[in-house]
Amino acid sequence: MPKIVDHDARRRELGEAFWRVVLSDGVEAASVRTVAAEAGYSAASLRYYFPTQDELLDYTWQMVLDRALARVGALALPAVPVEAALLVSEQSVPMDAERAAEAQLWFSVAAVARTNERLRARLEEVHATLRDGCIRIVAGLQQVGACHPDRDPTAEGIRLHALIDGLAFHGATLPGVYTPAQMRAMLRSQLDDLRSAPV
Amino acid sequence: MPKIVDHDARRRELGEAFWRVVLSDGVEAASVRTVAAEAGYSAASLRYYFPTQDELLDYTWQMVLDRALARVGALALPAVPVEAALLVSEQSVPMDAERAAEAQLWFSVAAVARTNERLRARLEEVHATLRDGCIRIVAGLQQVGACHPDRDPTAEGIRLHALIDGLAFHGATLPGVYTPAQMRAMLRSQLDDLRSAPV
Repeated sequence: MPKIVDHDARRRELGEAFWRVVLSDGVEAASVRTVAAEAGYSAASLRYYFPTQDELLDYTWQMVLDRALARVGALALPAVPVEAALLVSEQSVPMDAERAAEAQLWFSVAAVARTNERLRARLEEVHATLRDGCIRIVAGLQQVGACHPDRDPTAEGIRLHALIDGLAFHGATLPGVYTPAQMRAMLRSQLDDLRSAPV
Repeated sequence: MPKIVDHDARRRELGEAFWRVVLSDGVEAASVRTVAAEAGYSAASLRYYFPTQDELLDYTWQMVLDRALARVGALALPAVPVEAALLVSEQSVPMDAERAAEAQLWFSVAAVARTNERLRARLEEVHATLRDGCIRIVAGLQQVGACHPDRDPTAEGIRLHALIDGLAFHGATLPGVYTPAQMRAMLRSQLDDLRSAPV
């Protein structure tokens, strides 16, 4: 079925073009016109493969998310558990251009999710994935004694997740407001505080 | 100068109408058409007072922000410092319909701020105000012995601010994802952790 393969390849090309425009000029520069031009297609071709802007956003977001998850999966984790937890937590924080662009795409999805069922489902799915990941990080630290046994991994995990998304929001909307070192220090304090008994 | 007074009064009426629509139906329902209808004016009248949607957003956001600041200023603060800090911190977290609508407006401003100089300046100003407020909260706790002397109020303040904005993001984009009790518990843990020495 060469037609279908071609269709998928075209969509991937257009998603890649969307992502390159976001990476270089920000999500507000990613219009039908600029994305089509970046991919070397006409605006009409782009609309054939993605009838609405939301479909292109959804496709590209899923593509970028898959890559981010692959990046997390491929991390060489340090032997010290808290350092490994820090490295994983940092992957959703806009500490470089790639993660800043990921956060920008994420807030674009969030901005239209209330009026778009598919993007809303995606938002909920990603929220749950990140939340559960944060809970697992805390539970893992507790197992190796790096989180006090009296702390609740679920409560601490959702708090870590809120901190991460706050940093993602600050980094996406006010790029440069915090240095990577400041963002890392906030995450490190959050993880370090888990060692103490809750008050 | 009755003409000017009238102009200001009309703008306020339209800003109030915008805010009522956001409060009842969410920011995505606040179009020129619905806001004009809510205020009892024509869409053309609305455009006379606010030539662009961004100007209406900016005006309304400032009006709502002034009210939120007045609300914080009028709080009857508990005598226990950490309880007072918690009550102030809660004011920017979407724990009820009013604060959820405030957070929605805030993310609407953020979504267009990258391509709108005035809204960008507003975003930076509000970010700085909230950040400095959080730093003052932590410094105040340190003065009364409710924050360990070895903790840096600036570092802890920006971390508290990131948590608050993360909760604002979660509450605005996924209403109901956390109960008010869960949000309060996250803030309380954040403040309680300040008592311990940093690791």
